[in-house]
Amino acid sequence: MPINRVAIGLPREDVVHPGALKAALAEFISTAIFVFAGQGSGMAFSKLTDNASNTPAGIIMASLAHAFGLFVGVSTAANISGGHVNPAVTFGAFLGGNISLLRGILYWIAQLLGSTVACLLLKFSTHGMTTSAFALSSGVNVWNAFVFEIVMTFGLVYTVYATAIDPKKGDVGIIAPLAIGFVVGANILAGGAFEGASMNPAVSFGPALVSWDWTNHWVYWVGPLIGGGLAGIIYNLFFITLTHEPVPSTSEF
Amino acid sequence: MPINRVAIGLPREDVVHPGALKAALAEFISTAIFVFAGQGSGMAFSKLTDNASNTPAGIIMASLAHAFGLFVGVSTAANISGGHVNPAVTFGAFLGGNISLLRGILYWIAQLLGSTVACLLLKFSTHGMTTSAFALSSGVNVWNAFVFEIVMTFGLVYTVYATAIDPKKGDVGIIAPLAIGFVVGANILAGGAFEGASMNPAVSFGPALVSWDWTNHWVYWVGPLIGGGLAGIIYNLFFITLTHEPVPSTSEF
Amino acid sequence: MPINRVAIGLPREDVVHPGALKAALAEFISTAIFVFAGQGSGMAFSKLTDNASNTPAGIIMASLAHAFGLFVGVSTAANISGGHVNPAVTFGAFLGGNISLLRGILYWIAQLLGSTVACLLLKFSTHGMTTSAFALSSGVNVWNAFVFEIVMTFGLVYTVYATAIDPKKGDVGIIAPLAIGFVVGANILAGGAFEGASMNPAVSFGPALVSWDWTNHWVYWVGPLIGGGLAGIIYNLFFITLTHEPVPSTSEF
Amino acid sequence: MPINRVAIGLPREDVVHPGALKAALAEFISTAIFVFAGQGSGMAFSKLTDNASNTPAGIIMASLAHAFGLFVGVSTAANISGGHVNPAVTFGAFLGGNISLLRGILYWIAQLLGSTVACLLLKFSTHGMTTSAFALSSGVNVWNAFVFEIVMTFGLVYTVYATAIDPKKGDVGIIAPLAIGFVVGANILAGGAFEGASMNPAVSFGPALVSWDWTNHWVYWVGPLIGGGLAGIIYNLFFITLTHEPVPSTSEF
Repeated sequence: MPINRVAIGLPREDVVHPGALKAALAEFISTAIFVFAGQGSGMAFSKLTDNASNTPAGIIMASLAHAFGLFVGVSTAANISGGHVNPAVTFGAFLGGNISLLRGILYWIAQLLGSTVACLLLKFSTHGMTTSAFALSSGVNVWNAFVFEIVMTFGLVYTVYATAIDPKKGDVGIIAPLAIGFVVGANILAGGAFEGASMNPAVSFGPALVSWDWTNHWVYWVGPLIGGGLAGIIYNLFFITLTHEPVPSTSEF
Repeated sequence: MPINRVAIGLPREDVVHPGALKAALAEFISTAIFVFAGQGSGMAFSKLTDNASNTPAGIIMASLAHAFGLFVGVSTAANISGGHVNPAVTFGAFLGGNISLLRGILYWIAQLLGSTVACLLLKFSTHGMTTSAFALSSGVNVWNAFVFEIVMTFGLVYTVYATAIDPKKGDVGIIAPLAIGFVVGANILAGGAFEGASMNPAVSFGPALVSWDWTNHWVYWVGPLIGGGLAGIIYNLFFITLTHEPVPSTSEF
Repeated sequence: MPINRVAIGLPREDVVHPGALKAALAEFISTAIFVFAGQGSGMAFSKLTDNASNTPAGIIMASLAHAFGLFVGVSTAANISGGHVNPAVTFGAFLGGNISLLRGILYWIAQLLGSTVACLLLKFSTHGMTTSAFALSSGVNVWNAFVFEIVMTFGLVYTVYATAIDPKKGDVGIIAPLAIGFVVGANILAGGAFEGASMNPAVSFGPALVSWDWTNHWVYWVGPLIGGGLAGIIYNLFFITLTHEPVPSTSEF
Repeated sequence: MPINRVAIGLPREDVVHPGALKAALAEFISTAIFVFAGQGSGMAFSKLTDNASNTPAGIIMASLAHAFGLFVGVSTAANISGGHVNPAVTFGAFLGGNISLLRGILYWIAQLLGSTVACLLLKFSTHGMTTSAFALSSGVNVWNAFVFEIVMTFGLVYTVYATAIDPKKGDVGIIAPLAIGFVVGANILAGGAFEGASMNPAVSFGPALVSWDWTNHWVYWVGPLIGGGLAGIIYNLFFITLTHEPVPSTSEF
């Protein structure tokens, strides 16, 4: 296998057999690693400030924890499951025809379970602190948050398509996981202060379940799925279908 | 197409046909993603601090948002449009003979439109907050800002030439988008506190249009265009023209 | 040797001969560079704040210092020793059959020595400041910290396996050192506020020895070794053993 | 030329001819870009805080500005001059036999000039603010700072050798500039609070000259040169000379 190669977005086999279960396990572990760091950084901020309201330093903590953690989640799962680590990415890949329905459902279960286990571990490790659910800041209504999630997840899934799934490129090495981690890190610096900036239903599901707080929870599902779906459709429509260059027959992959 | 390959600065075809429109669409989307995070981080700082004046933490937010966001913008557009995401980069590429006038104008329109759409989306998502235009800090006059923009954009476009456009290198993978994101992130840590550190007319145009505040706006056009143009000319003059090594005939691309 | 190739986790020869001593020296120096920056950043925070209790900015300093420093430690040692820079990684590699017992012991001695020398140099350079040992925050008991260290080191060593040791991939270039640095940086943003977030017995050993403070020191050994060992076993069990794809005979290495 | 290839530390020709002047120009520009961001970030902190004493956020600004800026400086100059951007690196390369005396002197002049021009531009752009020279914090004596500079520059030049100069590896792509930027960013988080953490005589020369403040200036020359020289000697002695693997005759470069 070539050097420096990480395959993202394109699992090799697409039916439920041992490879699919292995892929689901990889999604489970990588999502748990990602959510443990991301949600944990929010709880650390609360610990350090005695639950003060958020500050620029708190947003920077969240941005770096999610950027670093998602890079790790995508990199570690990339060669096994395609490195989705996000139901909205799986949904966007499904709409673009890059994953089957059955395998997509398996990924969703693994991702939600990974987030939940991460939150339970955080609850124990922090001596019982609350795993705060994503919430709207004062002065932000649910439609503001809804549009925020749509726009930011569009950016995320567009990035996944442009750097990882686009069939012209095949395996993409370091650029894809870095761009995916960085687009989430950048968007948190914008949206985090207003509505938490989830862009990932698994990221918001675990904390909501463990703290049993479902206020406005739908926003963090419907927003990302619409944004991610739109990105998948638009990328396929304008960028993939317009390309008619013949695929070289002696391709190296 | 080889692994880990991202082509920056050198769009393959250089006339207005479907490829040019596709490239303009990529510039539009990537600029929107970049400006949404960058400008959004400034609005988040205002939200978190009730419009307090800037602090080191606010500058760090801006630096990371622009560094991460520009890396994403360049990476996602690189294989489609060359990944300019900046009228000053397009101008520098034009002066160096790397893009035609018509295609350059198309890019400019796409970039300005992308920034404007990002600002309109931010205005809605933030429940109507102002998309503050770039402005001079107290104690900084317009010529200080002018020189700041020239010097910083020189550094940016010099980096684009040295890591992405220089024909000796062809495709350049990960180094170019990372260096381009990082030079902007670094320069914001220097110039952000004095005059906002735009280095990119699209980045300053959207916020000015949406908030309809054109004070000193010319500085954020003329400065970057002079700096970027100078970089293009100097790089071509001293580094590209001095190289007379024969190109190996069995080149791998 | 190919371009952009860094071999992590798989030292070429596995007995005690000059190559092993050279590898131990590389582990010693790289661990010293890593601990000097990481522990030094904590002492800098104390210096800047007159020993105030930790804040979000202090945690960000620690996160960046360890993420940057570990990337450097792994990258510099990768081609010589495999770039462990961490007794828990060496232990996980031993359990997975990737390093011999003797060589593993040699690495441990080098890593502990490197950390100790870094702390002695810090003590001198800082004009005698204390090299504070890792400690529990108030409200966190030893079992909370124990689980924190297990979970976070599991994530670290799982990342090492997925990006660096997995024999399917061989040499892995830039992804492995970056993922290894970033998983530690991310976890510090979560666990740093609660129990310091060591994930590395060498990182906690040097400061404890030089400041002669062994309170709860066992947590920072047993936690990482359990977490790292578990990761090694689980990765081998589910991901490496399930792969039965024939290795292509005309592999490029 | 291969993809993703950046040659660091090994300029192709080593005498004074047009190539050497071109290399010196590259060192001049890259050092100016690097110092403009690095020194500028310190002046921005002073601007934002009305010259308050340093804080953790100020150190994070300095760390990111230097890490990002040095990555850019090394990446842009790598293929032209080897990307030293630092008299201590040039000195270490000279001791290791990787650059001639004449060319080394040319590099030094270019680096010092680049730093000076950057500081003059900063002085104008900031409306006449002082380009503060590197200085010792209270409670830190000159020998503390001396050892700090030796240890940190040792780490830097060791990193240059391990990732960029080591002849076993030839061209090294992205790892070298990233490791070089990150080791400086990490060390600033440790040493910045105590004595500024220069590791680079050019970085301290420009500000000292423009503000005409030479207090303890020798520390920022002698420390880095000793540390960098030691690293060059030790790396050559233990790592390069112990390697006797035959170089493959059909090397790809």
